[in-house]
Amino acid sequence: MTDEIKNWAERIRSGDLRALARAITAVENRSPYASELMKALFPHSGNAGIIGVTGAPGAGKSTLVDGVAREYRKAEKTVGIVAIDPTSPFSGGAILGDRIRMQGHYSDPGIFIRSMATRGSLGGLARTTADVTSILDASGRDLVLVETVGVGQDEVDIVKLADVTVVVLVPGMGDDVQSIKAGIMEIADIFVINKADRDGAERVEREIRALQGLALRHDAWIPPIVKTVAHTGDGIPELVKKIDEYRVFLDKSEAGHEKRIQNWRNRLVEMLRDALMEQVEREHLGNGAASRYAAEIADHKRDPYTIIEEIVGTVGRR
Amino acid sequence: MTDEIKNWAERIRSGDLRALARAITAVENRSPYASELMKALFPHSGNAGIIGVTGAPGAGKSTLVDGVAREYRKAEKTVGIVAIDPTSPFSGGAILGDRIRMQGHYSDPGIFIRSMATRGSLGGLARTTADVTSILDASGRDLVLVETVGVGQDEVDIVKLADVTVVVLVPGMGDDVQSIKAGIMEIADIFVINKADRDGAERVEREIRALQGLALRHDAWIPPIVKTVAHTGDGIPELVKKIDEYRVFLDKSEAGHEKRIQNWRNRLVEMLRDALMEQVEREHLGNGAASRYAAEIADHKRDPYTIIEEIVGTVGRR
Repeated sequence: MTDEIKNWAERIRSGDLRALARAITAVENRSPYASELMKALFPHSGNAGIIGVTGAPGAGKSTLVDGVAREYRKAEKTVGIVAIDPTSPFSGGAILGDRIRMQGHYSDPGIFIRSMATRGSLGGLARTTADVTSILDASGRDLVLVETVGVGQDEVDIVKLADVTVVVLVPGMGDDVQSIKAGIMEIADIFVINKADRDGAERVEREIRALQGLALRHDAWIPPIVKTVAHTGDGIPELVKKIDEYRVFLDKSEAGHEKRIQNWRNRLVEMLRDALMEQVEREHLGNGAASRYAAEIADHKRDPYTIIEEIVGTVGRR
Repeated sequence: MTDEIKNWAERIRSGDLRALARAITAVENRSPYASELMKALFPHSGNAGIIGVTGAPGAGKSTLVDGVAREYRKAEKTVGIVAIDPTSPFSGGAILGDRIRMQGHYSDPGIFIRSMATRGSLGGLARTTADVTSILDASGRDLVLVETVGVGQDEVDIVKLADVTVVVLVPGMGDDVQSIKAGIMEIADIFVINKADRDGAERVEREIRALQGLALRHDAWIPPIVKTVAHTGDGIPELVKKIDEYRVFLDKSEAGHEKRIQNWRNRLVEMLRDALMEQVEREHLGNGAASRYAAEIADHKRDPYTIIEEIVGTVGRR
């Protein structure tokens, strides 16, 4: 490891926000330095509480995460926020919404916010998010809040990386949302009914209770339901209390350790998949090779199954 | 290639529905025979028109696809339908909804319907869908309709495999849906405003027109907007007309050939990723090795970045 990388890691650990921001950018861009930097930071990670917050678009997640961060600041805890914003798969631009406004809002260095786009068709979003979370963790943040829209496999993978998963629902989303919700319901450690001053909050609560009976958990925790009105702050202290209770539960039981092992297992597979694809793209698909293969297949000169077998048989042998 | 595989492929091509269903199951389960079967079928694929239909949950895609299939049947065309149903990531069960009812509805062997679940955290859904589409194509179906919920990267990847992509919108979905829609808008070759008898259909049309100005297309096609009421059948003949017009456009211009090459390029990458992961899981992560690695990382005995480098360096060398 070079002195430059060690120095960079040291600056991140000492709270240098520019060094921190630069590290996140390096991971996002898959810079050749990223892996070395992550190795240098790894021994200092594992201390932060990782809180995942997910829910449908429009559920008020940003405002809620904002409120939770402020609440932790009252207790002198430092917070990192990683917000995953949906990206257009073609233009590549993130739909930042009011995230930019929120970012400008803070002058408190105790809260660090980073928006990330869901770009790239090669996946790897969960891996990048996990690395960014680890950087914030190693930088000494007490808590890292990861906020993501609760749709799609990518998002579920991201949420799986958290110690505590908070699923945010709102009254009046209609029955169509059920199909999306179902996938995310089972990973909730805490349910939030946000905008609980709206009609229908009780109905949502009844629905959660009904679905809870079906969910299989690996620990003895019964996910509580917290009602909030994020924009007034109602219910936020209660939510933070429940998050802390679950963290204590994880620490005291074997469940916390098992969950971290399971998380690392998932993350390792993600990392491997990305690393392998990078190697294969470099060795076999570069310089227009991918397009030549594709043209041969489209013209029915070769079949793709044989091409795949050939490539897989020679990976790492060049 | 064994005679058994050749015989199986032959039965699929002759229209044997049981042989067809068994082939799809083999692909879904990643049976060891699947790759050989796909090789046998490949020379006979490439003739069907692949139509992707996507949109938010509740947009009425199933009913619309149903209607399009019936319309093609009137012209004596045979149709295959592949419907991707959201799965719970934990229980693994598909949320089939009214799909089962629809399946029972058909006694016409000219329409073959297969539901597929979005299961598995290792991705590969796009690859499986592509293989199933190829099987239906090789079986001699004139058209293959692929229906998927328009959220998440997986779904976008699936839609990219189609020759023609139909994006279904409905009036009154609210502004929150915009962020999901944005990603899928740019891949539309044809827009459908379903439930067009509802208030707000004109507003949706204006929104599409506004967003169209921003989208960059690789061909000279201007995506038409078709208004439908799927449950009455209104607008369905017009939709089929537009689908056929775009297919003629693709055939006459170079765009169709380029699109197929681009599709195969994406698909090849997907296939490679899955094949590599299968090999790595077999060679490096089997017999509890993944969990042992994960435990070492969770206990901070080893860092994951070094483990990844070690594994990637030895893939295929055992």
